[in-house]
Parts: sequence; structure tokens; C-alpha cells
Amino acid sequence: MKAVQVVGYHENLRLTEVPEPEVAGPHDVIVKIGGAGVCRTDLHILEGQWAEKSGVTLPYTIGHENAGWVHAVGSAVTNVAEGDKVILHPLITCGLCRACRSGDDVHCAQSRFPGIDTAGGYAEYLRTSARSVVKIDDSLEPADVAALADAGLTAYHAAAKASRRLRPGDRCVVIGAGGLGHIGIQVLKAISAAEIVVVDRNPDAVKLAVSIGADHGIVADGTHVGQVLELTGGEGAETVLDFVGEGGATRDGVAMLRRAGDYHVVGYGENIDVPTIDVISAEINFIGNLVGSYNDLCELMALAAQGRVRLHTARYPLDGFQEALDDLGAGRIRGRAILVP
Amino acid sequence: MKAVQVVGYHENLRLTEVPEPEVAGPHDVIVKIGGAGVCRTDLHILEGQWAEKSGVTLPYTIGHENAGWVHAVGSAVTNVAEGDKVILHPLITCGLCRACRSGDDVHCAQSRFPGIDTAGGYAEYLRTSARSVVKIDDSLEPADVAALADAGLTAYHAAAKASRRLRPGDRCVVIGAGGLGHIGIQVLKAISAAEIVVVDRNPDAVKLAVSIGADHGIVADGTHVGQVLELTGGEGAETVLDFVGEGGATRDGVAMLRRAGDYHVVGYGENIDVPTIDVISAEINFIGNLVGSYNDLCELMALAAQGRVRLHTARYPLDGFQEALDDLGAGRIRGRAILVP
Amino acid sequence: MKAVQVVGYHENLRLTEVPEPEVAGPHDVIVKIGGAGVCRTDLHILEGQWAEKSGVTLPYTIGHENAGWVHAVGSAVTNVAEGDKVILHPLITCGLCRACRSGDDVHCAQSRFPGIDTAGGYAEYLRTSARSVVKIDDSLEPADVAALADAGLTAYHAAAKASRRLRPGDRCVVIGAGGLGHIGIQVLKAISAAEIVVVDRNPDAVKLAVSIGADHGIVADGTHVGQVLELTGGEGAETVLDFVGEGGATRDGVAMLRRAGDYHVVGYGENIDVPTIDVISAEINFIGNLVGSYNDLCELMALAAQGRVRLHTARYPLDGFQEALDDLGAGRIRGRAILVP
Amino acid sequence: MKAVQVVGYHENLRLTEVPEPEVAGPHDVIVKIGGAGVCRTDLHILEGQWAEKSGVTLPYTIGHENAGWVHAVGSAVTNVAEGDKVILHPLITCGLCRACRSGDDVHCAQSRFPGIDTAGGYAEYLRTSARSVVKIDDSLEPADVAALADAGLTAYHAAAKASRRLRPGDRCVVIGAGGLGHIGIQVLKAISAAEIVVVDRNPDAVKLAVSIGADHGIVADGTHVGQVLELTGGEGAETVLDFVGEGGATRDGVAMLRRAGDYHVVGYGENIDVPTIDVISAEINFIGNLVGSYNDLCELMALAAQGRVRLHTARYPLDGFQEALDDLGAGRIRGRAILVP
Repeated sequence: MKAVQVVGYHENLRLTEVPEPEVAGPHDVIVKIGGAGVCRTDLHILEGQWAEKSGVTLPYTIGHENAGWVHAVGSAVTNVAEGDKVILHPLITCGLCRACRSGDDVHCAQSRFPGIDTAGGYAEYLRTSARSVVKIDDSLEPADVAALADAGLTAYHAAAKASRRLRPGDRCVVIGAGGLGHIGIQVLKAISAAEIVVVDRNPDAVKLAVSIGADHGIVADGTHVGQVLELTGGEGAETVLDFVGEGGATRDGVAMLRRAGDYHVVGYGENIDVPTIDVISAEINFIGNLVGSYNDLCELMALAAQGRVRLHTARYPLDGFQEALDDLGAGRIRGRAILVP
Repeated sequence: MKAVQVVGYHENLRLTEVPEPEVAGPHDVIVKIGGAGVCRTDLHILEGQWAEKSGVTLPYTIGHENAGWVHAVGSAVTNVAEGDKVILHPLITCGLCRACRSGDDVHCAQSRFPGIDTAGGYAEYLRTSARSVVKIDDSLEPADVAALADAGLTAYHAAAKASRRLRPGDRCVVIGAGGLGHIGIQVLKAISAAEIVVVDRNPDAVKLAVSIGADHGIVADGTHVGQVLELTGGEGAETVLDFVGEGGATRDGVAMLRRAGDYHVVGYGENIDVPTIDVISAEINFIGNLVGSYNDLCELMALAAQGRVRLHTARYPLDGFQEALDDLGAGRIRGRAILVP
Repeated sequence: MKAVQVVGYHENLRLTEVPEPEVAGPHDVIVKIGGAGVCRTDLHILEGQWAEKSGVTLPYTIGHENAGWVHAVGSAVTNVAEGDKVILHPLITCGLCRACRSGDDVHCAQSRFPGIDTAGGYAEYLRTSARSVVKIDDSLEPADVAALADAGLTAYHAAAKASRRLRPGDRCVVIGAGGLGHIGIQVLKAISAAEIVVVDRNPDAVKLAVSIGADHGIVADGTHVGQVLELTGGEGAETVLDFVGEGGATRDGVAMLRRAGDYHVVGYGENIDVPTIDVISAEINFIGNLVGSYNDLCELMALAAQGRVRLHTARYPLDGFQEALDDLGAGRIRGRAILVP
Repeated sequence: MKAVQVVGYHENLRLTEVPEPEVAGPHDVIVKIGGAGVCRTDLHILEGQWAEKSGVTLPYTIGHENAGWVHAVGSAVTNVAEGDKVILHPLITCGLCRACRSGDDVHCAQSRFPGIDTAGGYAEYLRTSARSVVKIDDSLEPADVAALADAGLTAYHAAAKASRRLRPGDRCVVIGAGGLGHIGIQVLKAISAAEIVVVDRNPDAVKLAVSIGADHGIVADGTHVGQVLELTGGEGAETVLDFVGEGGATRDGVAMLRRAGDYHVVGYGENIDVPTIDVISAEINFIGNLVGSYNDLCELMALAAQGRVRLHTARYPLDGFQEALDDLGAGRIRGRAILVP
């Protein structure tokens, strides 16, 4: 089959012919790829940023946001059958460790990550596990939802966790209205009645955010902290969802947070650097957020099937991978680029 | 001032002249009534059903769903000022018992209940406490929201409690699409992405429920349990919100409930009568629901201000009280009757 | 190997020779039995009470409370190895359904139950799954903990769930100080500072309960509801843990419950039969409790290793099964009878 | 009456004669002081560290950890009566703001703080509010529990919050075994079955901690992070309770924390300075902790009455205040110094 592989760091990806994956274990599931999201992380992989962390041996097939159709299943697979339309949870988890046994499979003690440390989805077929496939609604197409498998799942996870404390009338500041923020806003809108205040440096992103449901849009131009405080009667917001995590976002975000508020860290880059006296005197919390669980992905797919979460996509054929990466690198993609084999 | 009083059980209410209430204690608040909901409970009071329970001395002024404007405040009142538009929490609570101190003021060890055991809101003015007044948004009118003070607050409380366990894709059956069910559906819609399945004997009520956001409407015609099971893949719903509680509703409702599901009891009349073996083998829960807390009322008012919860009302002048009660008794009211002094 | 089998309902069990179980699937684990609890359910099986429900084909090996040593493992088993000392979760679960994926594996959509619907532990060896084996501390012996696998796990699950709402100074009534109640009291003692009030018809059981940590012991002699109300200032207890569920226990238990209290149903037999008006006006909850999850069993084993949960046992050799059953039936067992092959 | 006042910063306190406080408002409570804790914060007040923050006008009476007997009550006080033994919540709260209405009175929008910004308890009498007095058990003496009013309450609040996620077998690292840590360990012991690992620079404090129930004691000598990791199988602890917050404690503490773990900030001094990439990739949380609520104090008093929380005290007469402060400053106090008027 055709697959797009990393053949060396700081080199271009290469389209090549590799053997089709086959069922090797009882829980294996072979998926015919219907869509593979092209993600900024893919650019970072090529720059070698993940080389040491993943320990992957080159060449290997990248692509970690995948959806498609079940092509073959192992003997012990009971949750999907050939032909099922599925989206893939990004991790392959063990199902046996304490984290897996509590539904918190993201903290699995021995997970693998297709597209990062084993063969991914820039290909015609991919091998994953029964524990990683989520059936999607008839109304959804793999290429439309593929990008929800990782970026979208992270945003869902954070927004859903945040929503558990948000009551009608509470205010939630969303820092960053890019890909993740876009999903986060739609999720908040679907499962809470909090007032959503979006803050982003890009006026167009702010406009778009308001058009999909944010109650207030603020351009981060230096007056944004003051604007949020004014909107919240000087108190700050009950929750901040920070999808940026760099360029001073955390300092500004903490300044927007109310006493007893929750600061959800999603984006990353800089340090959280806050005096403990401020943490205790305002009694605020910093909540880490990684990608969501398998059940989170089921829930996100329910929202997608209901039409409550939508993503704009730009499709490319599998052999158009270079153009897709170039467009991503140059900021020419609106929404997400998807490779469709 | 003018007030409508109970002068005897099984007698008509009487419009009479009584002294205006005055600030007597530091936390007293005198409210000029802008709207008083006419509730089925008022009919029951006249039938003497509450006589023993309330221990009230006749004559007294009824009306327990009230909203209006602050007219005067005691010396220790800091949360409202003269002229503020307010809705009244139905109870006057002590603020000192363990329940009050945990935000669960409905279980106050020594509460009073205007309109039930002390002077209520079928009048020009009413005396309550600083702990019972919630400022409402400029966009809301007292007469429009008054009926949310008790019936609406109960529905909000139950729906909000239920929502804490509802995830996108979960199913919530709402039994009863009358006044409370109507509010309950709007609340579920606002703060969850659960699929809402409404069950009611009245086909028009089912239609109305679907028009305001229920995903499925089922007429309770004997096939309704089967229909819910079919809609839920034979498993039953994660949650049942029962606003009826009589006429076999609880038996049917339990049959619609999924393993590990929550059955919220709101309506009342019959007994819950379930084998303990069924409770433990399916590991289901029965959750009682009384009226909401002060903070619940604040949250409901936030939803009302956002336009997410609306109520149809029919207005009557204060001296039209008899017509309002007659119309209610005869089933001629759509939504809620409101007395506007 | 030797195994004790059900050969017919209303007949005695029979010790016989059967083939040793072997690893057949990748997640299979063969356990050399070190102890198998003799449970009242085993008597009920022989009376045919489970025949229809389980659909098991006779003859088969009974015994559903098992612990021992890992004897062999399938190719995909990573959590235990040959020689490990283990206790067995009573269910074999799929690991793929939504319940399993949320840690709530007791509600697995397709579980099996060794000793009930497939070969159990009154034998030298038993086949289970990697998902069902919990390693136990070096200090624990299989024969000492086997009876915690089902009865103890149920008590742990209920007590742990109840404890999540119990604060220091709250009162928890434990109805029934038999096998489950005994464990429940020890668990409450270990993880809460609630005042524990034990109610049982048997004065000796009440004494024993007080000796292991209950704060108050009350003999159920007709004055018990009054005594509990007196102990709780007339308010009732925040929580009732009912390990009986028959003979009027639920009626009495509800009368002991405080406003906004939780009634945990564990024992079964009679119906819960409560007016909905009482459920809503006191806003009480009825919480079903089935056996605990895999992680619950890990936690219970942690308590056992800490010496916080102990069980008195009477050991019998495997071929002494009839004596053990006879002693159990005649009420001659203190604690639990354990078969030790 | 006699009172000890701040008459100037960087000056000694002065014992003087001031008018007895009187009931001025309906919720006022006058307490005859039975014990006033001498706290390090009192030293900081004299150094002027709180001058700007509190805005207090000199001279004023200090002392913020108080217990005693009710001497007089205002007309609206229903929860205590003259002669009741009470401990005082450190704050006087409004009871009307959203925080107060949810039981989170520590975040009251307009609280006062006797001993910090209004007259405190180094005196014969003190005026507080009905909302701040907690009746204590007959078995407790004001002088014995006074120091639990602030320091103890903070430790209780943090340990109780942490315990909500701790399951049997989980590990909780307690950094700092001084006054707060001492209480925190006793609380953890009373309401959880987590393994408690204490880390402190002072070997004697570690020994004392182990003697009151810590499962492991580790002297912070540079090898402590490694020792904690070894004790936790290389994974780190599920929870860290940091009562120090300076001198590198937070850096070390984070290194001891497991994936998905909770880091409770209680002590303060340095900054939390952690890369966001670490926060999200391990998905850890930083939880702020301020003093506890009114209900927290009730719960702590329940633990004290049960004998589960004890404090060593050194008593001084009111006019021995200088000696008490000197002893505290010189590190000569074991446990807490208490002024007994």
C-alpha cells in the first residue's frame, strides 16, 4: 500500500510503498483510512523535536489524527466489525493498569501512539486496537471528523472538565480562538450556559469565535485584561481555558481569574510562574489537561453527530501531502488540512 | 394596601384592605409586588389541605411565587437597594443552621414560607428577608418571571442536578411536559447535550415539548415504555426526570431506566414501590428533589436573562384573582396565570 | 484435578475429577486456588434459585469467592506472572463496552461470573481473565482474603460510596452487623470519621460490631428507630447503609434518615415502598449498590494489607465441602467458611 | 477590660484598659475569651507586614485564634446562647454574597478579620457575629482548641479537600511537619486510608510525625525526592500537601508527584514555577488552599471531640503576652502558645 513516511529529520516526507498491516493479535483492528489530519505536530516531528521522546526508528509512517472504515479485526474484537465507520483514539492502551481500569486511559502505564512512535495514518491502512476505535454516526464522514481525533479531543476534554464547575451566569474566558479554541467554544456552548469571553490576538479569529457562539470577543491588544475585568464587574472570571500557554498568556490569564477560580492549562510553551501567596490568598487552581479518554471521544462524536461541533476542513489527496504541509506551514489553511487516501 | 386573603377554608378568597408591611428587623426587605403566580397549590390551600401542616392563622394573604421591586430595606441589608427589580426565593431562611451554611438553604432548620404560613404576594406589598431576594436582569419584568420563583425553581433544581451526570449522547427521559416539565426541558437543553425524550399523556403537550427542544416526543398510550426502550437500544435511559409521580408514572419510569441510572423524583402522589433486588442488581438510584436553593434561583434567572428559559403567562389585575383561580381550576390557562397589582 | 460440582438441584454437591483448565485465549489466567469462600449464595444455587437466571449447564464447578496463585498466563497478559499471589474479581468483563471503559466494569454489557454461570473455585485450578486478577500483598494469604472477593467487595463498594458524602460529625447507621456489615463498619472506620450507629436484631452481633469500632450499638427490638432518633437529636442520620433489606428494615431505615440523607440499599428481599411525597419533601435519596469494581477490589486489598479490614475464617479442606456447607446452613460458622484445596 | 494592643509597628505590644465590647447589632455575639492563640502572623503584624493590606488604624487589639464562652448575644442570634462554649471562625462574613450563599464563606465579598483589621482576642472579651461562633463539645476546653481556629482550620481544609480524591493505597506526601502539617497528618489519618509520607528538614519533626500516624518519615536532606520516588515505585505520589511553599519545596514537591496528581498549595513564600508542558503532559493540578469554611470548623471540632485531632499547647496568662511572643520568636514553643485571660 501507499504510505507517507519520515525518512530523516529535516528532510521531506516521502510517499512510498509498504506492506499492508495485518491482524497479528486478537485485539488488532485494521482500519482503511478515510481521513488523516495534518497537524502542526507533524511539522515538529520533521524538525526532530520528538525524536528523542518517541524513540521511533526511521523510516516510519506519520499521521496521528485518523478516521476511516474497519477493514479487518482480530479474534477477540467484539465492539466493531468490518465496514464500520470509525474514528481512532490517538493512543493504543493496555486496558489493565490502574489508570485504564478507572477510565483514565490517557495515563495508561504502557501506551503506544500511532503516528508518533509507531505507524500512523498517512497511509491507506493502519493497525490499531479494539480499545481505540469509536464507531461514528452514519451522518458523519471520516474525512470530516478525523481532526477531532487529537486536537478536537483535547479541546473537548478540557472544556468538558471545566464545564463541571460552570453554572449559568458564570463567566469562562477562552484564551486562543484557533483550532482548539474553536472546538472548545462549541463544546462549552453545547454543555454549559456560562458566558463565554474569547481573547485572541487575531481580530479575525475573535470575529469567527463570536459568530459560532462566544458571548464576548476581545482582541488581545494590551487592554484585554482590563476589558475582561470590566466585563466581570472587576472580579474576574470563574474559569479560564488557556489554549495558548505562551507569549505571556498565563500571566494575563491569571490576572483575569476570579477568587476560587479554575485555570485550565491546555496550550503550552512558557512557564506558569505565580507566587504561592497569590495561589493561596485567592485560592485558585491550575488544572492540567492532556488529550481526552476513549469515552471523551465517544461524547465528542455524539456532539458532532448532533451538529453541535463542526470543523472546517481542506482536503488533499494522499500524494498531495507536501502541499498540505506547505500550506499549513505558511498559514494558508482555514480549519484543518486532511489527507484523503 | 389591597391584599387577597384566605378568610376560611372552602370559602372564596377575599380582596381586603390591610396595613402595609413595614421594616421590622435589620434584614427585612419590603417588596412592591410586580407579579404573583397563581398556582395549583393555592387551590389546595383553599380546600384546607395545608391547614394543619402550615398551622397558619386565618385570615392571611396567600401567594408564594412573587417578584417585584424593592420598596424598603432594613439597616443590615447590603445586597439590594430601593428600586431594585427582584424575584423572591420562596423561603425565608435562618442563615445560621448547618444546611444554610452549606448552601443547601432549602433544608433550613427554621424557615418560613410566605403565602403558605405567613403573608404572601397576592397584595401590593410583601415583607421578606435579604436572604430571599435575587436581583433580576434589566431585560426581565417581574410579572414575566414570578412563576419561576417556585415551580420553575423546582424544575431547575432537578434538571441541573440530573445534568451533572449527563454526558453528550446520554438519554434523559422527561415524564410530564406540563409547567415543570416545560421548564425542565429548557434547562436540560441549556446545560447539557443529552438526548431528551419527553413522555406525556397529552399529545399537544408532547408537540409543544418537541417544539422547544425535546429530541423525541412520546405519547403515553401504553406503548411508551416499549418506545423508550427501542429508542435506547433496549438499554433504557441514563436518567429519568419524573415530574408526574402518580398514575403509574414511577412504575413505567423505572422500566425505562438503564443499569446504573438515576431516577429523579419531582412530581408526587403515588408510592415508589420497587423490589430491593431490582435496586441492587441494576444498581439504580432514586433521587429526591425539592425546590431549589437561593443560588439555584440566581442561576435560573441567568438562564431567563439569556432567553434560554421562557414561560408563557396570562396576566390578571389583582382584583381579577377570582377569575384567575377559576380559569386555573377549569384548565383554561396556557402557561401560568399571574396577578399584577 | 479435583473439583466440587453441582450435579443436580436439590442434590448434594459432588467431588469429582475434571480436566485442569488451560490457557485458551491471550488474556486467560489460570489460578491455583488457595482459598474459596463458602457463601450463602452457594446454598441458594443448590436450591435452584439461580438456575434460570444463570442458565448454566450442569454439572459445573461452583465457588465465586476465590484467591490463590497464578499458575499460567496467556500471551497478552502483562499485569501478573506465574507465582503471583492474587485475589479474583468475581466477574470476567469485556473491557470494551462503555461501562468497562469508565471503570464501572460491574455493569459490563457481557460479563461472565465463575461459580455462577461458568466454572468456579471449589477446585484446584480455575480459569479467569487478566482483567480479574488483583495482586495481593506479601503479608496476606489467599485463604484469609478469599471471602473478600465478593461479599467483602460489596460491602466495601457501598461503604466507600457512602463515605464520599460523610463528614466528621455526620452519623451513619449500619443496619445489619453480619458478614457484610462487619466489613462495612471496618471500611467506614478506615476512611471516614462519621459516627457509626449499628442496628441488628442479634445482641451478640451488636457487641461484636462495637468491639471493632462502631460508636453506638442498638439491638433492633422495636425501640430502635426511636433510639436512633434520640442519638441524632431527633433529626435522623445523614446516611443509612442497609445490609438487610428485608423484614421491615427499609421502613425502619427510612424513618431513621435525615432530611437530604442517603439511603444505601445493599441487602435485599423486600420492596422499598415509600410515598413520593416523602421522597421529595425530605429530599432523600435511595442509592443502589452492587458488587464493587476491579479498582474497588484493589482498594479493599490495600485496607486488608494495612490490617484495617480483617475477617474471621474457618478453614476446611476441599473434600470437607459438605461439612462446610452444613455448618453454614446450621449457623455454626463465625465469620466465613473457606475451602482450602 | 484588659486588652493587648498594637500601638505602633516595630514597637512592643501594650497591655491596656479598653471599654468592653457591647452588642451593637442583632447578629452580634460577645465572647469571653478562654484562649487566644499566639501565632507567627502576630509577629509579622508587629513588623508592619500587614499594615497596608489590613488598613487597620492603631491602636487596636490583636489575636485571631480565639475560643471562649458566649457572654451576650444580639436580638437575632438563634444558634448560641449565653454560657455556650465556642470557638470562633476567624472571619466575620456577610451571609448574603454568592460565596456565602454556597457555603464558601471564606470568599465572602465583604468579610472582616478580628485581630487583623478589627479588634481581636488578646483581651477579656471580643465582639464577633452569630455566623462565626461554633459550639464545641463539653469535653473540650477553649484554651485547648483556640489554635485550631485558624492554623488548624487551614490544615483541616486542605487535608479534607485532598482526601476527597485519595483512595486506600494511594500515597499522600506531606511536606512540612510543623504546626499545620501536624494537624494535617491527624486529619488525613482520620478520614482516609492513604499512605502518608512525611518530609521535613527537621529529624525531630519527622519522628513526631511518625509517632502520630505518618506511615513513612523522610528527612529532607537532598535525597528526599529520590526516597519518595523509591517508596512509590518510581511513579510519585497521587497527592502532595505542601505546608511549606518556600526554600525549594515546590520544585521538590512537583518532582514527587504522580501523573494526574494533585499538588495542594498551603504554605507560601516562593513562586510555583513549572513549565506548562509539564503541567499538561503529566496532567497535574495545583490546588490553592486558604482557611476553611464555617462548616469545616464544625467538622474539625467533631474530630477534636472524638480525640482524633490533638494539639500540644503552652499556656500563658494574658499579661504574659510578651514572654509568649518572645518564646515563639526564639523557637522555644512546642505546639502552640495560648494566652488565657
